[in-house]
Amino acid sequence: MENTILLGHGSGGKLTQKLINGLFVKYFDNAVLRQQTDSAILHVDKENIAFTTDSYVIDPIFFPGGNIGKLAVCGTVNDLAVSGAIPKYISAAFIIEEGFLLKDLETIVSSMAEEAKRAGVSVVTGDTKVVPRGQCDKLFINTAGIGFIEERYKGISTGTDVRAGDKIIVNGTIADHGIAIMAARNFGNFKTDVVSDCASLNRLTRDILDSNCRINFMRDATRGGIAGIFCELAEQKNLGIEIEESMVPVKESVRGMCELLGFDPFYIANEGKIILVVHEGDANKVLARLQQNEYGKNSAIIGELVDKHPGKAVLRTGIGGSRIIDMLADEQLPRIC
Amino acid sequence: MENTILLGHGSGGKLTQKLINGLFVKYFDNAVLRQQTDSAILHVDKENIAFTTDSYVIDPIFFPGGNIGKLAVCGTVNDLAVSGAIPKYISAAFIIEEGFLLKDLETIVSSMAEEAKRAGVSVVTGDTKVVPRGQCDKLFINTAGIGFIEERYKGISTGTDVRAGDKIIVNGTIADHGIAIMAARNFGNFKTDVVSDCASLNRLTRDILDSNCRINFMRDATRGGIAGIFCELAEQKNLGIEIEESMVPVKESVRGMCELLGFDPFYIANEGKIILVVHEGDANKVLARLQQNEYGKNSAIIGELVDKHPGKAVLRTGIGGSRIIDMLADEQLPRIC
Repeated sequence: MENTILLGHGSGGKLTQKLINGLFVKYFDNAVLRQQTDSAILHVDKENIAFTTDSYVIDPIFFPGGNIGKLAVCGTVNDLAVSGAIPKYISAAFIIEEGFLLKDLETIVSSMAEEAKRAGVSVVTGDTKVVPRGQCDKLFINTAGIGFIEERYKGISTGTDVRAGDKIIVNGTIADHGIAIMAARNFGNFKTDVVSDCASLNRLTRDILDSNCRINFMRDATRGGIAGIFCELAEQKNLGIEIEESMVPVKESVRGMCELLGFDPFYIANEGKIILVVHEGDANKVLARLQQNEYGKNSAIIGELVDKHPGKAVLRTGIGGSRIIDMLADEQLPRIC
Repeated sequence: MENTILLGHGSGGKLTQKLINGLFVKYFDNAVLRQQTDSAILHVDKENIAFTTDSYVIDPIFFPGGNIGKLAVCGTVNDLAVSGAIPKYISAAFIIEEGFLLKDLETIVSSMAEEAKRAGVSVVTGDTKVVPRGQCDKLFINTAGIGFIEERYKGISTGTDVRAGDKIIVNGTIADHGIAIMAARNFGNFKTDVVSDCASLNRLTRDILDSNCRINFMRDATRGGIAGIFCELAEQKNLGIEIEESMVPVKESVRGMCELLGFDPFYIANEGKIILVVHEGDANKVLARLQQNEYGKNSAIIGELVDKHPGKAVLRTGIGGSRIIDMLADEQLPRIC
């Protein structure tokens, strides 16, 4: 048995078969995948589906709180979940550097399988490419996902019903993922016990949607941080956004690290945090419900949509001041997800 | 305006927005993509869908007959088409090396848009990651695809109705893609005018399915060549396969190149060739219909399924001999697709 990935594992021949049967089918085991057809044939019992994709190039591939495989499942599950969909099916496509350790691949695939099970999704189709040494960095994973979406939730992803007065909620402390990755990369040579918040949030979003509260918009705050969402939403809806800085949950250790390194936690990536825009009449109910969830304990109402300064997001700071929240202009930290 | 891809193009911030609006939305233009939501919300009017994914890491990214972008659309369209599905929606996820030329990216994206239009599919969701110089080789693209599939065609991808007596048809000359790529890479220092057969075959498969002939199985002969399909099919169906070597269409120039380089065209990748397994009573009708199609002019019946030697594919050679067709054991040529 080989210890490392060989070019032959991507040939479409015997070694590929061995990898598929010995690893992917073994861990992702389900009836559809077992058939190993060109396409997975799936039954759909809704008239609408949500469809999304993301490639994951995170460095390092193993980090406190997860690995690239877990992230690749959570990230795609969350993109479906914040669209109001119930994530159902996932594809998994691997680009692997020749010489990659098979035992590391097994750890990663087993994490993906575990996270898929936790989130209630099936990995039904996939692909493996192997490139010669030096032509990619270890391992990249792409996942695409399909979810079922009910007619009444179709407006969530575009925020059809978003209006002034709506409250803005975040489901916990921000910037944990980015800080954990920086530490894992020895960026700035600091030590921290912060772990990535990488988690599938589809059960949390489902619970909130099932409460019949008016959830007008949701988005996961990955690359670009929560700031990116505020800027895009304000612009797209031509409404103002006001955020109360003191209300935004940030771990003390994360805040300290950001000050030390000169980063603003608003721009740092999360992998288990979403921004919810909720009708003001339902905000407290949603908050209470979120706080009961494993992934929402530190949820907080952090701001609101306003008629003032349309298209702009404004941060109200502790000392009565305010400043514009602008979109990230340049790359802060490559390969954060 | 930048001339090259910067790390900031993958930040999720302003430069990412600029790339999405200035390039992806511009070329892939459609109502769903324009909304730029986390997931594309799609209407489904069938009870069953086909779902597939492939990553493309071909080297070189521009080659005679296409480029990585065209290939990424054709490949995924074909995976859906051979499953009996009507390809509808495609995702496009890019992993780009820092410093990649924006004009090359534009050429590639415009090819994808052109091919998507030709095939009748919409690119509805996507992702862009940029990795620092040297951490990937130029550009990798992942496409996932969704097709609608009618109940009566659900058995095609697994070959539910395949039986001894069925005829095996290929829709034209084999090994063109692999030879074109080898030449483009200066492998063996030969010159050739062979171009890749890279093409979307969904209109061809649809035409054949609409003819009400009994099509029992289809598969596209990419990595691993036509040999790979024969080996897998014989094993999965526990039937024998007999192929008449003299009936398999191979261009003279391709045959010459294979002899020179010591390659067997049966194992060389195609990107516009499929193997069809057709009920013997309908084989000639299917052949005639294929030959009328732009991508099926050189179609030929090349063999059949038999009860003899179950699980094995056998090649009948010109001089009355025969040999077992085995699956490719090792990698022949990395990054062929």
